[in-house]
Amino acid sequence: MPSASEKRIVMKFGGTSMAGIERIRHVAERVRAEANAGNQVAVVVSAMAGETDRLVQLCKEAAALYDPREYDVVVASGEQVTSGLLAMTLQGMGVNARSYMGWQLPIRASGHSAGLIDHIDAEVLEGVFAQGGIAVIPGFQGVTEAGDVATLGRGGSDTSAVALAVAAKADRCDIYTDVEGVFTTDPRIVPRARKLEAVTYEEMLELASVGAKVLQTRSVGLAMRYNMPLQVLSSFEDKPGTLIVGDDKIEEFNMERVLVTGIAHDKNEALVTLTGLPDKPGTVAAIFGPLAAANINVDMIIQAAPREGEKSELTFTVPKGSLAQAVAELDKLKDNGGFESMTTGTNVVKVSAVGVGMRSNAGIAAQMFHTLAERGINIRAISTSEIKVSVLVAEEYTELAVRVLHTAFGLDDKEANAGAAA
Amino acid sequence: MPSASEKRIVMKFGGTSMAGIERIRHVAERVRAEANAGNQVAVVVSAMAGETDRLVQLCKEAAALYDPREYDVVVASGEQVTSGLLAMTLQGMGVNARSYMGWQLPIRASGHSAGLIDHIDAEVLEGVFAQGGIAVIPGFQGVTEAGDVATLGRGGSDTSAVALAVAAKADRCDIYTDVEGVFTTDPRIVPRARKLEAVTYEEMLELASVGAKVLQTRSVGLAMRYNMPLQVLSSFEDKPGTLIVGDDKIEEFNMERVLVTGIAHDKNEALVTLTGLPDKPGTVAAIFGPLAAANINVDMIIQAAPREGEKSELTFTVPKGSLAQAVAELDKLKDNGGFESMTTGTNVVKVSAVGVGMRSNAGIAAQMFHTLAERGINIRAISTSEIKVSVLVAEEYTELAVRVLHTAFGLDDKEANAGAAA
Repeated sequence: MPSASEKRIVMKFGGTSMAGIERIRHVAERVRAEANAGNQVAVVVSAMAGETDRLVQLCKEAAALYDPREYDVVVASGEQVTSGLLAMTLQGMGVNARSYMGWQLPIRASGHSAGLIDHIDAEVLEGVFAQGGIAVIPGFQGVTEAGDVATLGRGGSDTSAVALAVAAKADRCDIYTDVEGVFTTDPRIVPRARKLEAVTYEEMLELASVGAKVLQTRSVGLAMRYNMPLQVLSSFEDKPGTLIVGDDKIEEFNMERVLVTGIAHDKNEALVTLTGLPDKPGTVAAIFGPLAAANINVDMIIQAAPREGEKSELTFTVPKGSLAQAVAELDKLKDNGGFESMTTGTNVVKVSAVGVGMRSNAGIAAQMFHTLAERGINIRAISTSEIKVSVLVAEEYTELAVRVLHTAFGLDDKEANAGAAA
Repeated sequence: MPSASEKRIVMKFGGTSMAGIERIRHVAERVRAEANAGNQVAVVVSAMAGETDRLVQLCKEAAALYDPREYDVVVASGEQVTSGLLAMTLQGMGVNARSYMGWQLPIRASGHSAGLIDHIDAEVLEGVFAQGGIAVIPGFQGVTEAGDVATLGRGGSDTSAVALAVAAKADRCDIYTDVEGVFTTDPRIVPRARKLEAVTYEEMLELASVGAKVLQTRSVGLAMRYNMPLQVLSSFEDKPGTLIVGDDKIEEFNMERVLVTGIAHDKNEALVTLTGLPDKPGTVAAIFGPLAAANINVDMIIQAAPREGEKSELTFTVPKGSLAQAVAELDKLKDNGGFESMTTGTNVVKVSAVGVGMRSNAGIAAQMFHTLAERGINIRAISTSEIKVSVLVAEEYTELAVRVLHTAFGLDDKEANAGAAA
């Protein structure tokens, strides 16, 4: 274990950070700086941006129903290349580094393509740390019980990094990416969006579920389970990012915390409205049962209460990518008298306010509806969780809805505001 | 082991045969045909053409003095990709195939970058054969005793294939490439060159040493040592290639064999002439000692016998790539009075006649000199081995010298000749 003064840190670099030798050299400098600051460091790398797509495409061309085992052999090569290149670049700078493939460490995976990490033996890593060395580890890959190369599913490098940090009992896992951190909302929509100093795991999960694709959801879930502090920060700018920590640690950053941490939006929802449903018990279950069986996630649901004896209407959302399949499943039910007619729409956006602070405040939803109503924005559907309120509105209102909610919940950057006024 | 009627064959496919999914599909069809003919088959593959160069270039850019261990991690990925792709393509055709990485088989290598194959355990392979399966194995790679990925040096896939054939006690190792086989000479120079039905290992080695780059020399040496029959044939045309066998088996093909099997040429030699060497014992050793110490191969040597008490002249050849280094080494000797002046020339070509038949015939060299003299081609240097006579001539005579020797030794294709006359 490191001495009291130094920290043990797992650094993870994504595909854009590894795209080409110049960027890899820049990554190596970052790693060296962290080590020179007296920290114990292990590094997890993604494949060069675009490389995994290229390899996946080759597999698809090779065989329509490719064997997951062979797929893993092919696509794991992308991270193998970048880990070797980063290790030799570090060595070229005089840093004691070497690569360890997933099968060497080993990182035990549960199975092929989108396997889960079962176990990481930290013994090899501890040996490297003890010798003052830096292990460079390809993300996204492990080895099966049978001794074959396995991959962890797209974006799995984040999960590799967190799992490695947990196994090595690291103090923190830093995820270097092409954004500076987690913002109160999309800065392309709201220029006064602020980078958050810290969010909780739950907030990060909710933000991810509603479109803020900063980290792979699995990696956040894993960090939460083991209470491993994460940091999201930019590979390209030398400044602190956003910390992602547990409820217990968020208090330290709570000075200026408000009820709502961020506003996210997600255009990946499609709206389905069924009319003429028979008013009898089990009607709704008869609709959602087959959708669930087909692995289609139903998110927001509104059922207009019918008058006694009349037929009712049901509106819900599904992911856009599942809409065609959902329609096919529903068409079968229509033929069986499950409903009379179906309409679908994709020009909708889900806008969400997320924050652990709203747990203790029932007024968030009310304030959200009020703010949107003031601007004449019609709410088509609503869903809530303990720390999130989501509304579905017409897609054309995306920017307006995000902006007015960002302001209403006090998230605008005061300094940027003052600057604009000056 | 296969039954009497079937053969066990290792098939090896080079980079041009694996360049893209369409070609890999074509390779898979070849493999399936060989298996459907009742043979036990294992396959060794190279990386896609150009891929190894790309990976080597990345390593060079990453670190001027790259670590061979990390270099191996990076460049071995090229064959990893093609072996996975070929395995899944075969599976897509209903063939029972799967890939085995060098570290899985395992193929034990002596060390990193240009390591030698120490040992291949055939147990896994025998298991695959016993189940009627086809193992697809990345060429050019193995695993070190420390458990790290190792590569075997450029062109090492041929060596992998031969070593695997030896370990698996195969009946034959078929090397699929972009040429149809071994020719009596370069068909681009002599259109009437003939494809040879068979050559001996020694002939192949001599032909390779003088420019006929069909197979990696190491792979031929290994096949010779274990008397493993090789076949060189085209991936793109469905016809027999050239067999490479031992002296004992060549007799079967001896019906129309002549004294000379082929004429090769090699432009990779540079000429060095030193004048004013002191006429005393040890003069030549003092020249060649430092060159040998610097790993520079000296090939052809002529020393003009000096008159009593006069200074002598020494002419020899070195590989063009070593010329600058040779000159630097020789300059040091000049300063110490080793000789008076040095001239170098690179516009030379080495033309060689190769054939096991010439062992028993001293007249080959005489016929060669006579044939060249008739055309006014001046011979600058000569070297001979048991089955080869090489002469150094001015580069401008390359095509003429090859053509007249090809005709003089009776190698011209009679049918092509007849066709031309008709």
